[in-house]
Amino acid sequence: MTVASTTSTDARGRRPGGRSARVQDAVYRAVGTLVSTGFRETMTIPQVAEAAGVNPTSIYRRWGSVDVLLEEVAVAALTRDEPLPDTGNLPADLDAWAVIIAEDIARPHRVAYLRALVSARDDGGVETCPCWETRRAQAGQMIDRARDRGERVPEPRQVLDHMVAPLYHHAVFGLPIDADYARVLVTDVLRMAAAPN
Amino acid sequence: MTVASTTSTDARGRRPGGRSARVQDAVYRAVGTLVSTGFRETMTIPQVAEAAGVNPTSIYRRWGSVDVLLEEVAVAALTRDEPLPDTGNLPADLDAWAVIIAEDIARPHRVAYLRALVSARDDGGVETCPCWETRRAQAGQMIDRARDRGERVPEPRQVLDHMVAPLYHHAVFGLPIDADYARVLVTDVLRMAAAPN
Repeated sequence: MTVASTTSTDARGRRPGGRSARVQDAVYRAVGTLVSTGFRETMTIPQVAEAAGVNPTSIYRRWGSVDVLLEEVAVAALTRDEPLPDTGNLPADLDAWAVIIAEDIARPHRVAYLRALVSARDDGGVETCPCWETRRAQAGQMIDRARDRGERVPEPRQVLDHMVAPLYHHAVFGLPIDADYARVLVTDVLRMAAAPN
Repeated sequence: MTVASTTSTDARGRRPGGRSARVQDAVYRAVGTLVSTGFRETMTIPQVAEAAGVNPTSIYRRWGSVDVLLEEVAVAALTRDEPLPDTGNLPADLDAWAVIIAEDIARPHRVAYLRALVSARDDGGVETCPCWETRRAQAGQMIDRARDRGERVPEPRQVLDHMVAPLYHHAVFGLPIDADYARVLVTDVLRMAAAPN
């Protein structure tokens, strides 16, 4: 399991300590195990509680529902601890970032999480995805730095739609995904920024 | 259920007749019902057979596994009977096509199918997705016509990566998806084609 390393911060960037941190570690690890052994569709809070060795009440109180818990674990697992590239120019930043994302989400455990995240979505009007918002913030940071340096830049939305989305699409649908593909997407996005209006 | 209307051709474009067509209709409808009532993860061939009122052997013989069946139904449901736009210029063709896809895959049943398709993927080395290949052929057709007319065109891959993939990504992750968003993606793709090399 690779989940343990993701538990130092939760999806909101808090760093819980003491007993709370131990519960979170155990719960994240239990969810990771259940997801990677194929329980993602049928997972219940009592099951997670049993696997984690914690009281179901603690889970209900903190997360409320399996969907919220599953999404938080997925976000933490997918966007953890990646230092954002800062090379001095946007093309190189995006290249490095795209390769980091591609390599990260192509790993079997990450793919399992992404598919779990897809399964956990329903059409009850939820129209944001925390994982997506994290990526948007990261793209915005690199783009802001580049604009400050006077570089011609794409919009953050374009980086999400044309670099991040195709990578995730390839991962969840099981299409090929590697560093070369990631770099091709970056080239395309930079062509958009360079095109005449 | 909207599946019945998708059964006149199967994923390979064959039009089975008589008993074979009745079995296919019943099986597609059963899969649609099971998928939309949340059975996608645990669906078995005997279950589909029972819901369809056909002999399990007929299903095993024709489809071999639940994954193959599920994927075929999803492809048929997602790419059925759409006449490709042919307006006389690529920007208008892509605009119309993007809106057709966006409206189609944003419907609750279609989203359920797409998520079922994601759940059915595994990492056993399958690296194409029939649904994707259908879209690639459709994009190629419109681009070939435009090139013959002397228009400046993006590559089919760029249309898939930057128009189709973000639409699917938004659908499966439950992000907003509508005609305006589809048109923005088309504008981006056309900027790529217009950009200096």
